[in-house]
Amino acid sequence: MDCIEGCGGGVSPAAERLRYILGEDDDMPTPTLFTEMDTLQHDGDEMEWKESARWVKFEEKVEEGGERWSKPHVSTLTLHSLFELRTCIQTGSVLLDLEGYSLPQIVDDIVDRQVADGLIGPELREKVSFVLLRKHRHQHKKPIHLSLADMGKSNNSPTTSGLHHSTEDLRAKSGSLGRLRESMKNKFMKKIPRDAEASNVLIGEVDFLDKPFVAFVRLAQATTLGGLTEVPVPTRFLFVLLGPHGKGKSYNEIGRAIATLMVDDLFSDVAYKARDRDDLVAGIDEFLDEVIVLPPGEWDPKIRIEPPKKVPSADMRKSVLNLNELGQVNGTAGGPGGGEDEEMPTPHELGEELQFTGRFCGGLWLDIKRKVPWILSDFSQGFHIQSISAVLFIYLGCITNAITFGGLLGDATDNYQGVMESFLGTALAGTVFCLLGGQPLIILSSTGPILIFEKLLYESNTIDYMELRLWIGLHSCLQCLILVATDASYIIKYITRFTEEGFSSLISFIFISDAIKKMVGSFKYYPINRVFKPDYVTTYRCDCIAPDQGEPLLFSSFAAVSPPHIVLPPYNLTGLDWSQLSKKECVKYGGALLGNACKYVPDLALISFILFFGTYSMTVSLKKFKTSRYFPTKCRSLVGDFSIIISILVFCGIDYLLGLDTPKLHVPTEVKPTRPDRGWVVMPFGKNPWWVYVASGVPALLVTILIFMDQQISAVIVNRKENKLKKGCGYHLDLFWVGILMAVCSFLGLPWYVAATVISIAHIDSLKMESESSAPGEQPQFLGVREQRLTGILVFVLTGVSIFLAPVLQYIPMPVLYGVFLYMGVASLAGIQFWERIKLYLMPAKHQPDFSFLRHVPLRRVHLFTLVQIICLAVLWTLKSTVAAIIFPVMILGLMVVRKMMDLMFSQHDLAWLDDILPEKDKKKEKDGKKKKDNKRTKAAEPESDEEPKSPLPPPVKIPMDTIGLPSAPDPPSPPSLTVSSPPSLTHLAPRL
Amino acid sequence: MDCIEGCGGGVSPAAERLRYILGEDDDMPTPTLFTEMDTLQHDGDEMEWKESARWVKFEEKVEEGGERWSKPHVSTLTLHSLFELRTCIQTGSVLLDLEGYSLPQIVDDIVDRQVADGLIGPELREKVSFVLLRKHRHQHKKPIHLSLADMGKSNNSPTTSGLHHSTEDLRAKSGSLGRLRESMKNKFMKKIPRDAEASNVLIGEVDFLDKPFVAFVRLAQATTLGGLTEVPVPTRFLFVLLGPHGKGKSYNEIGRAIATLMVDDLFSDVAYKARDRDDLVAGIDEFLDEVIVLPPGEWDPKIRIEPPKKVPSADMRKSVLNLNELGQVNGTAGGPGGGEDEEMPTPHELGEELQFTGRFCGGLWLDIKRKVPWILSDFSQGFHIQSISAVLFIYLGCITNAITFGGLLGDATDNYQGVMESFLGTALAGTVFCLLGGQPLIILSSTGPILIFEKLLYESNTIDYMELRLWIGLHSCLQCLILVATDASYIIKYITRFTEEGFSSLISFIFISDAIKKMVGSFKYYPINRVFKPDYVTTYRCDCIAPDQGEPLLFSSFAAVSPPHIVLPPYNLTGLDWSQLSKKECVKYGGALLGNACKYVPDLALISFILFFGTYSMTVSLKKFKTSRYFPTKCRSLVGDFSIIISILVFCGIDYLLGLDTPKLHVPTEVKPTRPDRGWVVMPFGKNPWWVYVASGVPALLVTILIFMDQQISAVIVNRKENKLKKGCGYHLDLFWVGILMAVCSFLGLPWYVAATVISIAHIDSLKMESESSAPGEQPQFLGVREQRLTGILVFVLTGVSIFLAPVLQYIPMPVLYGVFLYMGVASLAGIQFWERIKLYLMPAKHQPDFSFLRHVPLRRVHLFTLVQIICLAVLWTLKSTVAAIIFPVMILGLMVVRKMMDLMFSQHDLAWLDDILPEKDKKKEKDGKKKKDNKRTKAAEPESDEEPKSPLPPPVKIPMDTIGLPSAPDPPSPPSLTVSSPPSLTHLAPRL
Repeated sequence: MDCIEGCGGGVSPAAERLRYILGEDDDMPTPTLFTEMDTLQHDGDEMEWKESARWVKFEEKVEEGGERWSKPHVSTLTLHSLFELRTCIQTGSVLLDLEGYSLPQIVDDIVDRQVADGLIGPELREKVSFVLLRKHRHQHKKPIHLSLADMGKSNNSPTTSGLHHSTEDLRAKSGSLGRLRESMKNKFMKKIPRDAEASNVLIGEVDFLDKPFVAFVRLAQATTLGGLTEVPVPTRFLFVLLGPHGKGKSYNEIGRAIATLMVDDLFSDVAYKARDRDDLVAGIDEFLDEVIVLPPGEWDPKIRIEPPKKVPSADMRKSVLNLNELGQVNGTAGGPGGGEDEEMPTPHELGEELQFTGRFCGGLWLDIKRKVPWILSDFSQGFHIQSISAVLFIYLGCITNAITFGGLLGDATDNYQGVMESFLGTALAGTVFCLLGGQPLIILSSTGPILIFEKLLYESNTIDYMELRLWIGLHSCLQCLILVATDASYIIKYITRFTEEGFSSLISFIFISDAIKKMVGSFKYYPINRVFKPDYVTTYRCDCIAPDQGEPLLFSSFAAVSPPHIVLPPYNLTGLDWSQLSKKECVKYGGALLGNACKYVPDLALISFILFFGTYSMTVSLKKFKTSRYFPTKCRSLVGDFSIIISILVFCGIDYLLGLDTPKLHVPTEVKPTRPDRGWVVMPFGKNPWWVYVASGVPALLVTILIFMDQQISAVIVNRKENKLKKGCGYHLDLFWVGILMAVCSFLGLPWYVAATVISIAHIDSLKMESESSAPGEQPQFLGVREQRLTGILVFVLTGVSIFLAPVLQYIPMPVLYGVFLYMGVASLAGIQFWERIKLYLMPAKHQPDFSFLRHVPLRRVHLFTLVQIICLAVLWTLKSTVAAIIFPVMILGLMVVRKMMDLMFSQHDLAWLDDILPEKDKKKEKDGKKKKDNKRTKAAEPESDEEPKSPLPPPVKIPMDTIGLPSAPDPPSPPSLTVSSPPSLTHLAPRL
Repeated sequence: MDCIEGCGGGVSPAAERLRYILGEDDDMPTPTLFTEMDTLQHDGDEMEWKESARWVKFEEKVEEGGERWSKPHVSTLTLHSLFELRTCIQTGSVLLDLEGYSLPQIVDDIVDRQVADGLIGPELREKVSFVLLRKHRHQHKKPIHLSLADMGKSNNSPTTSGLHHSTEDLRAKSGSLGRLRESMKNKFMKKIPRDAEASNVLIGEVDFLDKPFVAFVRLAQATTLGGLTEVPVPTRFLFVLLGPHGKGKSYNEIGRAIATLMVDDLFSDVAYKARDRDDLVAGIDEFLDEVIVLPPGEWDPKIRIEPPKKVPSADMRKSVLNLNELGQVNGTAGGPGGGEDEEMPTPHELGEELQFTGRFCGGLWLDIKRKVPWILSDFSQGFHIQSISAVLFIYLGCITNAITFGGLLGDATDNYQGVMESFLGTALAGTVFCLLGGQPLIILSSTGPILIFEKLLYESNTIDYMELRLWIGLHSCLQCLILVATDASYIIKYITRFTEEGFSSLISFIFISDAIKKMVGSFKYYPINRVFKPDYVTTYRCDCIAPDQGEPLLFSSFAAVSPPHIVLPPYNLTGLDWSQLSKKECVKYGGALLGNACKYVPDLALISFILFFGTYSMTVSLKKFKTSRYFPTKCRSLVGDFSIIISILVFCGIDYLLGLDTPKLHVPTEVKPTRPDRGWVVMPFGKNPWWVYVASGVPALLVTILIFMDQQISAVIVNRKENKLKKGCGYHLDLFWVGILMAVCSFLGLPWYVAATVISIAHIDSLKMESESSAPGEQPQFLGVREQRLTGILVFVLTGVSIFLAPVLQYIPMPVLYGVFLYMGVASLAGIQFWERIKLYLMPAKHQPDFSFLRHVPLRRVHLFTLVQIICLAVLWTLKSTVAAIIFPVMILGLMVVRKMMDLMFSQHDLAWLDDILPEKDKKKEKDGKKKKDNKRTKAAEPESDEEPKSPLPPPVKIPMDTIGLPSAPDPPSPPSLTVSSPPSLTHLAPRL
């Protein structure tokens, strides 16, 4: 405390001490500590220790009245109690590495020491021991007398019979509650790490002491001391504070302070390694130096603070201690002005996967090498209940897609490729890709641009379509393989967030708009008779009139009309009962439909809307249910994971119960080509002139660009850092298989397949894993995605056998599936920064969320950036809707060019926050940055607004953050005390107080 | 600092000092302080002061990169910076009550003092003055060079034409942004109280100083010092900290510390009243002693803490200081174990309105006396845009109710009372009540029990119904007046939360179930043809068949059928074209409807469902929109207030656009009794035997009980404390007018009216006021309800003239109104504790919200209490659905009996938290409590689990919360330092560090 002048070396003695003891053997981590605080309760003359709070990481308090644990919360302490605790450690008995095997022996040792130190008189020995050895009652155990005492309070008139009843009820109840508590105790054990040790804090008021009795004990070996601790965790530390009556609350606060310290990562290390009392005091000083202080006028101490999502890691804190930069870490607490070492935007890092190897097939080889070690886990990790939901969800998405695109392709190519081909192709391509591809989480599917390409191809019908297609496929396959062999995928690293989010938003918008279009379509397909008046139902009819109207038909409409199932010979029209014909038959036989009911279909449009919107909203609500307060976590996460399946089932059920003739999912039931005049294999030669075989290389180039862009951008999106994938990606391997599958599908006359962005995102989303929260109050962390091949393979195998599932699938109404599509589209927009930025337009500045880019980039620049992106998308959207859609992939390249041009409009600083720096820039800027750093070293800690965030680590520019050394005496012309530098510690501040 | 032994008197010198200076003239409140912190920026050789943060109550930081203000947040400080600040004040220059009129003069004075004190050498005088007089740039002003500098960063290739464009764009933009900023500045001025003064904190690094230059200045008069402050608020305090380069962050933290202190209620008082440097230091010590400390391992200092909903008031903190119980306040910070002085449940207080006066009409007289002074404001306060929404919303609720009940009453009484009477009665009774009643926020309406009573009455049809009804009405009126005259309403105070919430939940459930029933009804009314196959539309028809089927009708279905508008003479059936008749006509003329389409109505049921559910969900979403981030607050609150009207309009619009024949709201268009054989006045004599006039007193008694209970419980709910009504209630006056209106309505043959719980709650909800938040970050407070008579009167006047609004009202589909009903029912359940407790059944204990009753009552007791309530409601619901509904009001009395019996099942402690204590108990327990208090004084601070919460103030049981005095030396057999008691201050702890 009088070392101010003496410790000019730069390190406070506390930090120096800690650095020394913590640095010793850092390789053996100290166990986690569980802390229990028991307070002494007087019940008449009886005394017992009652658990009053516990800490795994956060504080849980016993609600006295509520007889329950409070929610885990951040311990708010008073500065006062921390100082008092410091005094306690300084003046009380500190017994380190005590050999203890039982509580009585330990208590004896403590009391002996106290007597030896003269802290208590020997005549109190008995009394203190007696108190310390009282029974411990834990929150989950009820004392014997409680069920009676509980009733005693309401025992106003014990004669009432109603009372007796309830007493018995209660007894029965408390029995079952006891069992419940036991199971809860076991549940709680799970929250404590296996290697944990306990620290017990005992706080009590007694009448025989006239000054406090304080002891801090560390046992040489962690020992289970009978019923001392709530859970069977061996005790390592013991803190005892007994004192005279009247200051219970103050003692309690000291108990909370030591308990909070014991679970502090840094202090618990100190406690394990302390050599003496002073090490402990140094630990407290270090803690005090790091605490966060809330001003009393701006915060109500009664508020229990919810545990934060993230806390500073112990390692970080320790390393800071060692680096002698504690002051700086402290200094950042929301500090204004001075340089911001807040989290920097994670740079655009695509990892080694996209490095240009320069060798033939170098990338492909690396991809394979990267993937091989995971082969086993690629299957074993698929066995999880979540996979079932994922498979069903993605399967339904896939077959809906297959049917939709199959239908459209069939229309476009006169059924050369129809629904049947679509199913088989999806199954084949998907299975192969998921089994052998580089990123098995990617789902292959037909996509819009390919559909348009096929359409245009078929329309140029002087050449045999299937053969031409085969040759284009072969050329394209070859081109893909060349791209693979030359590591061409490395150019993907020029795809920044700008391009990536633009592309995926566009695809999402297309999904959403398609879903809505289909919904609106059903209003056209099933027109509603809007002028229908229920009273005039008698005037509505639709009759089939025979083509020769010569003889008037006399028919009875009284007869119950049943749909005719007899197919009449097509030309025997005279014998036909026209009134019995269905609409289609009537038209088929050349009859005319007359009547005001003919063009309307009742109910179907509205019920379709209800099914569509209901499926969508229910899925959204069930997803939200995951974070609600109701039901246990497991139950909720199950509902959340299966939300889509549940919604589909519910609305299929509703549809089934209503029994209306809604459009259903119809899959082909027989394996045969949609068009009878084509077989299963396309022959490469014979139908077209020879030059076609060569010339088809030109359109193939377009297909290759399309495939390449579509495939690789989707892969980039799937491989996003946020998804925390661990098994690495395989861009080259992916492209290899897509190329091979091109050729195979062309030979078999099946459609071409490429990664489908939205369904792949849905696949990832349905496989996300979260940690089961460990310490009470700790937030579950997103751990990553179940990376495996099983779900993908199952999805496509199921797609293949859908032909046999037709009887089940026919119960699924199409509007329900459109609802699923809408959900997929909307869900894939979530979490896209572009979308968040669009929302900013609608928010007044003060309500905007605290995005880090908003802290660093002026709002108008953010808006400008977003605007550019919106314009790009609008242009793409317009193109997509025209014939130009065929050059859609080239447009994506256009996006990259626009991004490049934005380097001129925006500073690199802004772009680093809003997007990513383009690769060359990265290197160039790094040099610039270094220059600036040098400048800065001589410059003050001014905010460097043009300092680029470049690396995930805080920038190496460290401004020495010494504590300011203010003169300690009023007027010293002596050398300024500037030499006193960080880390500051209380010890050298205290004397100035 | 060496007073540990000396200051045994119990008060730390800091607290003693503060008590002295703050106690001086507490009548003159000190102005609010606005604090601005400017940091010195070096731009090459140029220097300027740039605003970096500001405080009205919470901190707002300038986001350097984002060029914007951060969200207001709680200032998180480091302990270190507070200690350094303390040193600064101790060693720097403190100039109190400096006569200052301009910044240069003040700067001169500061520098003079520093030189005089020898803190800086005279050679630095010029340099320091130069720095301190640099220009101040505030956040809302852009420096001249910025728009260029802004561009400069991206000026990589100035030749590009695209760039020039954007430069110009930006210039134009920054012009408009400047204007925007100006308006934002004005907006900000509104957030600062009128009498506010400024404190300016100037923090800077300079290269000519080798030790810090610190000055704290208080001006004798607050003076506007040019551009020093962002807003035109006169400056009172000035804190300057200049120091050598390299410690900018540390300086910043000190600046933030003093800024936070300056806006602290207690410290700003100290700053205003300080006599010398030591007073300021004492203020800091006091602040330090009150701070809340967060452990570094459990909280990330980077998190910006949102301002809490409530902060401890300055008065409370000051009073605590004076009461010398500071330690106690600190000690409660989430402290375990020790007695809980948390907020106690507000006791069941119905105020003086329900006191038994014992005088004839005493209560009524008091009611009138209480209401008269508000007459003017009862109208003037109605002029607000919110009223429009409230009027429209409640109006629609009222007419829907009037039509529903009118229709039912018409059915029940053979149209003796029909829709017309219902409208007139509602208008008459409502207008009179809102104009003259005691609680004009109550909305009168027909209610279920009365409907059932009328039905039973009419069925006993040997006696003339209207005359009997008149006599019952007269008797009931008389009985009501007797109840008024005898202050009988005072028994309402036995209605606790249990009864009140039970009743209102029941009414809400009835509302919800009625709405859903009506919705389901429309599926029965408009049956859907579930086997309809679109293809067989030709086989669906419905024909009208003439009763004599002898001659077959030959008709052409080819002719376009238009609904026949010619009404044919009823008996000329032979000439009738049966095929042209509508369904109703066909049935009317005895025709038979034949065909498979007759019993079905397409689309209407489904569209009704869409309208119903759509209206409900849209209202709920729009209400939620009020708390969303989008659009400015005003816009959002407008949308929130008008949510119901907007939803109704939107869905009426959809209905109109679809043009379907949905059921519409049809109001009568002519003023005439529904039944032609009754007039507008009922004659009291002549139709029934004389004994009926007397005997009708017996059923009247039932009506009276019904009216009394219904009216008064609704009134209790409306007058709930949570609604913060200011004009007092008028139970007696209410009942008086309800009685009078009984008689009037009976004479006019109109239905009887009584307070409608759900609509009244909706009325209150739509008139709620919130404060516009004052300091940035402060939560808007619920201020109360617009208590006025205007909205009520307007609602009922509108109801009266609805007859003329029929052309407009006929566009409103009934399903939309049922949706509104559903919303009303659900919304009135919100905020009911009973409902919250029911939800607890579904939540695992750890997810349950932190209700205060859960902290004090064991969960199983809470569940038991809720179960009793649920059973009661189930019984009532069953009764309501049978004929026994007529004794429904008596059942409410039954609820009160059940509540009384619960005194036997539950302890008074539990009941106080879950419900309220019944009045007598209240007094009795108060005595018990006193006894206990005496006991407790001698007992320790053990948790008192059976301490009843009795008053809104914390209980007067104050356990002396002295700081524990631990021995300062290791082994002192000297007198124990127990005498050192609270409030603890750092000064006497410091030497032990």
